[in-house]
Amino acid sequence: MRNTSISLRNLYEQPVMWCLVPGGNPFSVMYVMLVKALQAHCTPEQYEDFGKRVERFEISATYAQTELGHGTYLRGLETRADYDPKTDEFVLNTPKISSYKWWAAGLGQCCNYCLVMAQLYINGQFKGPHMFFVQVRDEETFEPLPGVHIGDIGKKMGYIGTNHGFLGLKNVRIPRTRMLMRYAKVNADGSFVSSPNSVLNYFAMVRSRCLIVRNNAAYLAAAATIATRYSAVRRQSPINPKEREPQIMDHVTQQMKLFPEIATSLAYAMSSDYLWNLYEQTIKDIENGKYERLPELHSLSCALKVTSAVDSAAGVERLRLGCGGHGYLSSSNMSNFYALATAACTYEGENTVLLLQIGRFLMKSWRSALSGAPLAPTVQYLAEVQKNPDFGTWTGSWENMVKAMKYTAANKTRLAFKSLLARLSRGETEENAANHTGIEFTQAAELHGRAFVFSSFTDEVTGPKSQTRSASLNCVLENLLELYLVKETLNQMSNLLRFIQLTDTDLRRLQDRLETVLTKLRPDAVAIVDGFDFSDLQLNSTLGSFDGNVYERMFDAALNTPMNQKSVPKSFNEMLKPFMKSNI
Amino acid sequence: MRNTSISLRNLYEQPVMWCLVPGGNPFSVMYVMLVKALQAHCTPEQYEDFGKRVERFEISATYAQTELGHGTYLRGLETRADYDPKTDEFVLNTPKISSYKWWAAGLGQCCNYCLVMAQLYINGQFKGPHMFFVQVRDEETFEPLPGVHIGDIGKKMGYIGTNHGFLGLKNVRIPRTRMLMRYAKVNADGSFVSSPNSVLNYFAMVRSRCLIVRNNAAYLAAAATIATRYSAVRRQSPINPKEREPQIMDHVTQQMKLFPEIATSLAYAMSSDYLWNLYEQTIKDIENGKYERLPELHSLSCALKVTSAVDSAAGVERLRLGCGGHGYLSSSNMSNFYALATAACTYEGENTVLLLQIGRFLMKSWRSALSGAPLAPTVQYLAEVQKNPDFGTWTGSWENMVKAMKYTAANKTRLAFKSLLARLSRGETEENAANHTGIEFTQAAELHGRAFVFSSFTDEVTGPKSQTRSASLNCVLENLLELYLVKETLNQMSNLLRFIQLTDTDLRRLQDRLETVLTKLRPDAVAIVDGFDFSDLQLNSTLGSFDGNVYERMFDAALNTPMNQKSVPKSFNEMLKPFMKSNI
Repeated sequence: MRNTSISLRNLYEQPVMWCLVPGGNPFSVMYVMLVKALQAHCTPEQYEDFGKRVERFEISATYAQTELGHGTYLRGLETRADYDPKTDEFVLNTPKISSYKWWAAGLGQCCNYCLVMAQLYINGQFKGPHMFFVQVRDEETFEPLPGVHIGDIGKKMGYIGTNHGFLGLKNVRIPRTRMLMRYAKVNADGSFVSSPNSVLNYFAMVRSRCLIVRNNAAYLAAAATIATRYSAVRRQSPINPKEREPQIMDHVTQQMKLFPEIATSLAYAMSSDYLWNLYEQTIKDIENGKYERLPELHSLSCALKVTSAVDSAAGVERLRLGCGGHGYLSSSNMSNFYALATAACTYEGENTVLLLQIGRFLMKSWRSALSGAPLAPTVQYLAEVQKNPDFGTWTGSWENMVKAMKYTAANKTRLAFKSLLARLSRGETEENAANHTGIEFTQAAELHGRAFVFSSFTDEVTGPKSQTRSASLNCVLENLLELYLVKETLNQMSNLLRFIQLTDTDLRRLQDRLETVLTKLRPDAVAIVDGFDFSDLQLNSTLGSFDGNVYERMFDAALNTPMNQKSVPKSFNEMLKPFMKSNI
Repeated sequence: MRNTSISLRNLYEQPVMWCLVPGGNPFSVMYVMLVKALQAHCTPEQYEDFGKRVERFEISATYAQTELGHGTYLRGLETRADYDPKTDEFVLNTPKISSYKWWAAGLGQCCNYCLVMAQLYINGQFKGPHMFFVQVRDEETFEPLPGVHIGDIGKKMGYIGTNHGFLGLKNVRIPRTRMLMRYAKVNADGSFVSSPNSVLNYFAMVRSRCLIVRNNAAYLAAAATIATRYSAVRRQSPINPKEREPQIMDHVTQQMKLFPEIATSLAYAMSSDYLWNLYEQTIKDIENGKYERLPELHSLSCALKVTSAVDSAAGVERLRLGCGGHGYLSSSNMSNFYALATAACTYEGENTVLLLQIGRFLMKSWRSALSGAPLAPTVQYLAEVQKNPDFGTWTGSWENMVKAMKYTAANKTRLAFKSLLARLSRGETEENAANHTGIEFTQAAELHGRAFVFSSFTDEVTGPKSQTRSASLNCVLENLLELYLVKETLNQMSNLLRFIQLTDTDLRRLQDRLETVLTKLRPDAVAIVDGFDFSDLQLNSTLGSFDGNVYERMFDAALNTPMNQKSVPKSFNEMLKPFMKSNI
């Protein structure tokens, strides 16, 4: 998994960097997202002027969109930039407390520039949200510039190393050339040229979401490595009273906590490869002026961002709980992985908001299919189910399970569409009807994402790439695919059973297959997670080190805490003794 | 909810104390559990000698069972106590690193005594695990006594105020009278009298679990209060483009994040009342020498402990995520509530271990029922389903839904029992067969717990107590019951559909009922959580205060962090500037 030719900058996208900075890195957003955003939205002159300075780390910058009062809803942002033709400058302002920028990564302590999303006004006329590159601190002294109120937003559940910041601006003036003008433009006379395609505004986010899916898979893989290794060291509760307590991994219930997460991390890692290919194709299309696949890519990247974040966070937590009480110790590093994973449910588009967007995309696609219009490849299955509404027979083969998940997603879409129409026909406005159908939208959208993972993971394991792998590797991958499909099918059974006839024997057989594949994976489990190739430094865990010296490492970590440096804690004489003697 | 007549000690069991010490309290275990354990297991003389000293807080003590290498499996504990008849003393030892006591609450910094669970040996003969009251620090100086290695286990995911400790003992001698001898006894000559009933050993834990259910309900209610209030202040994403952005609580998907958790917290609060009554009856029975209902109470307290911890943790997290990015800030206090709630999945009996025990209890009960033997009241439904294996018609009434959940739990028990028998008939040992049926055991056990909550919550809302409440209060409670039963039925639909025939219309109707009751609850939501009567001090949250001044409080909290006390952070001149100038 390691790549040897790495520079400081592209380190941020290399697996070798994964998890290396446990509390998050103040410059990740700069290198993973900001530089790309500048490349995409600067004119060549602008990029030469300040983009390259960021790239060379002469200045440090971040991206500020979210405000105290607004996040995902771009048009609700309140920071404004008024063009002043007299001085050829923009004047930036934070009108009230809710307009303060909030959550900008690295801005708390580490940035002297900031790419600020603000509402543009020319002659008092609103021109929509645009990006402005604003200097916020002196390059030499780092003192905040006049009119700039900047600071740290305070402690968080995780990402303690990222120093997220706030930013208030009061009549801060920047040259006109500091609005990113590759697409939309403001001329010196105040005339405005709008962007040729509004979707370009969110393209930077699409790329970030592709990366987030890979990161989510990595967090889950790292946590699975820790928990699996620990489960090979820890012994508890004899299965047979006359024998030694077994490795806890021999308990079937423990296998059920570990192996599905290994399979899930792989499913997302492989699905994200597919997504990444689609992203690169789309980049080329855009360069040739073709924007057709953008809504599909947007929707798919959102769906995978959502389900990978949900599954990774829940999986990491199941793995942490699988380490018993010791997983609660910070020295296990499991709660830190959880804090990193769950954050992805919210950043770069809050999950529910994204699911609603995907839901609307599905409604539009369903309607298009009804009218016979062509669909994007990854929603083609909707049209197929419309044409052939009968599922046919459940066989339980992998292909059949992929078909079943798509069929279920399509039927959930159909039902949501039906509910929407019913509401419209009862006289609700389009918007109210959409709000009231929100729960069904999110359910259909989630299944759309899951159906994609079913399909792409199966393709990656059984498709042409299998020819390039050894038979033994294919065997392990097939076991993990089997486990993933079976456990996810069981997880989604209430949805499946609504549309597909499964007999009691079919269900019994799925339970048997689940138990069988767990047993098959048991001997390989430690080797599989070793194969993920995380270093002890990356895992940073007393429970998950390669040598398995769990108790010694836990004990060392405890002895090294500041609390244990004196035989009598300070609090005793200062607080506890007087309190106990006071006889309340 | 407040009680005015409170003393220092019983404060620990009063709702007014809930959440007041955000990081946990080093003396909670002492007052909630230890004093009760001493009362239950000391002879009257022993309680006079040292029990009352704890009660009066002249000495501070805790309970140490878990070791570095062993937790829930009592017989695996390695700390040993050898009786020395020459001196009439026990000699306590920690044989190796894995035998160190670990996780004893308050022991890290605050206790000078400790109730130690250790394996008793007399003349080298093993007599099982017993409790020994051991002095660990000098009462005046607080220095550890000779042979005592004591300290803090280090930072955890939560409970930072509880200073969990470790304890190693090397030839530490205590008088014979410091083994708790109300039931089992060691005489001066070394003769041993065993306890009349081994279940008495775990009775202290039963009581703790009853309390844990109440606490879990309280954490969820507190988090629901914060998220509901925030959702009334926060505005986002217009539903109708021409109108102002609505309170986010007007989005149906947001209602779906909030209201089910309000209902769940109430369901557990009310079910725990039932459990508490059963506990108090059982106490009286024990005083009269009757132990019949102990296994049932044990099993039920375990089931509620498990499902309340799982639901509370997951619910708090859904509520935190419902607060968007701001829920990730420590100043929201949501992640702290999560850390408190999820800990309950592990302490006082790890959830999966408990589910397996309940599973075995269900197998035993199922077998008894088959042979016509009488069953304890709360598993009586198993016999009923055996007698009348046909569910009848789904009507969707509350009564019918309670019946459906019991029917499903019984059928899951039946299937697990069938799998167990099949494995036995294939020649597996009893133990291996039980291990291999583990997943089905845990599923049946969880449903057993859920069926109990269905039944007791419905009884509490619709039963005789409703006569004592106002019509308007009953109306709110009925809406919450409706929401709880419908959403839980939908959550468990894959299990239900396996045994009960529901038509597509039935399912559509449940979805309609869900959406209808969310709408009904919307106008009352803030008033309901206000009715939980948590003070701002208890909630300790910038997002959830009574006055709703969310942004002002977030901003103040940020300005007060140590990171914001200087205009240029120290790190700039020391680290960042030299690094940026170095031109890597």
